Amino acid sequence: MALVLYELAGSDPDLRFSPHCWKVRMALAHKGLNADRQPWRFTEKEAIAFSGQGKVPVLVDSDETVTDSWRIAEYLDMRFPETSALFPGTGVAELAHFVNAWTDTTLLPLTVRIILLDIYDCLDAKDRDYFRRSREERFGKSLEAVAADGAPNIAALQTALTPLRQILKKRPYLSGDAPAYADYCIFGLFMWVRCSSPVRLLEPDDPIFLWRDRLLDAFGGLARSATCRETEGPTS
Amino acid sequence: MALVLYELAGSDPDLRFSPHCWKVRMALAHKGLNADRQPWRFTEKEAIAFSGQGKVPVLVDSDETVTDSWRIAEYLDMRFPETSALFPGTGVAELAHFVNAWTDTTLLPLTVRIILLDIYDCLDAKDRDYFRRSREERFGKSLEAVAADGAPNIAALQTALTPLRQILKKRPYLSGDAPAYADYCIFGLFMWVRCSSPVRLLEPDDPIFLWRDRLLDAFGGLARSATCRETEGPTS
Repeated sequence: MALVLYELAGSDPDLRFSPHCWKVRMALAHKGLNADRQPWRFTEKEAIAFSGQGKVPVLVDSDETVTDSWRIAEYLDMRFPETSALFPGTGVAELAHFVNAWTDTTLLPLTVRIILLDIYDCLDAKDRDYFRRSREERFGKSLEAVAADGAPNIAALQTALTPLRQILKKRPYLSGDAPAYADYCIFGLFMWVRCSSPVRLLEPDDPIFLWRDRLLDAFGGLARSATCRETEGPTS
Repeated sequence: MALVLYELAGSDPDLRFSPHCWKVRMALAHKGLNADRQPWRFTEKEAIAFSGQGKVPVLVDSDETVTDSWRIAEYLDMRFPETSALFPGTGVAELAHFVNAWTDTTLLPLTVRIILLDIYDCLDAKDRDYFRRSREERFGKSLEAVAADGAPNIAALQTALTPLRQILKKRPYLSGDAPAYADYCIFGLFMWVRCSSPVRLLEPDDPIFLWRDRLLDAFGGLARSATCRETEGPTS
């Protein structure tokens, strides 16, 4: 029975830029699973009303509907125990949960301020009013004013990334010699940036850049070949 | 054969306030191990010269000398595999290493600015000149000027603690139902504050306060009974 994954899409239906949907996409690839990836827009609440809430990712597995990227990852390891584990040992899920929380509560609020206007530019026409209104209310200023404050946010993000950089100086992946869900949590954020924005946050000699490169190449270049707005330089 | 642990001490030799030494102290307790805890001051470089470097913690186990709290934790799990594991499952050490890096590179630089002058007040007379000179050079201002800037650092620390707070709303310890080394990494930082300073960083209803309380009570109240400058309120 095929899995169905609802993913946030832009005006180009192939542009799938949600960080949380990317976590799930990498998790599915890690487990060798395919899903029918359905494009979804912010304002298409009725299309996922069956899930009892209004956000993606939503994973449908026959009679089961699972929402929230973290719960989907836990579900996948429970439902498909014979495939490669996202949480390979006892106690790994607990600490990966912290990495997920760090990504979402420390990195994401800094990153969104850098790419907010770029995200707006990607959106389907029908999502634009909703997005501008909800985000301008959240930030208390126009999208353009948030974007104009970008430089200090890039510096703050670089500082916040320090512990990840320190670990990636020592080994290829946060999870060790091979990636696992903790890596995908953070990588999803970088795919959000790559898909929605031409901004370059990382220098090519940054251990985080090199880690990102390895994950772009993982699973047959799944992430590298995805529709995106980042233009690749000679080193990428 | 008894283990020997060199720990940073204040003018009161029972005041042991180093965050990194507290990581090791909790790790030893977790494994049910005792150590002969030797007080050491910043300027007593000759006393640990045998370790090939000039910082504590230093653990001596017969012919073996291990430095750096992270390497000591790894050593303890390898050397005493029959005792309770600090890294209980495959892949846990890798993610705990990230938690340690997050503590040391994100939380610690914010925290030290809050308690810097309090630490100075704890020091043995012979350490004071060294500490003032080295820290004033690092911060580019007097200890008193760093302390005067405390309030924004407390706010920044509260924000940085957000992912930990989010996880501790869900379960009693970062590592799950029981604490493990990832918890001790962060708890060491809170013991640094508790031992050296009367400042209160956490409100009694904060999930982090409640987690800290549980760890203060762990191992027969080992940490709660330690000499400290925090005065306990009715809720602590």
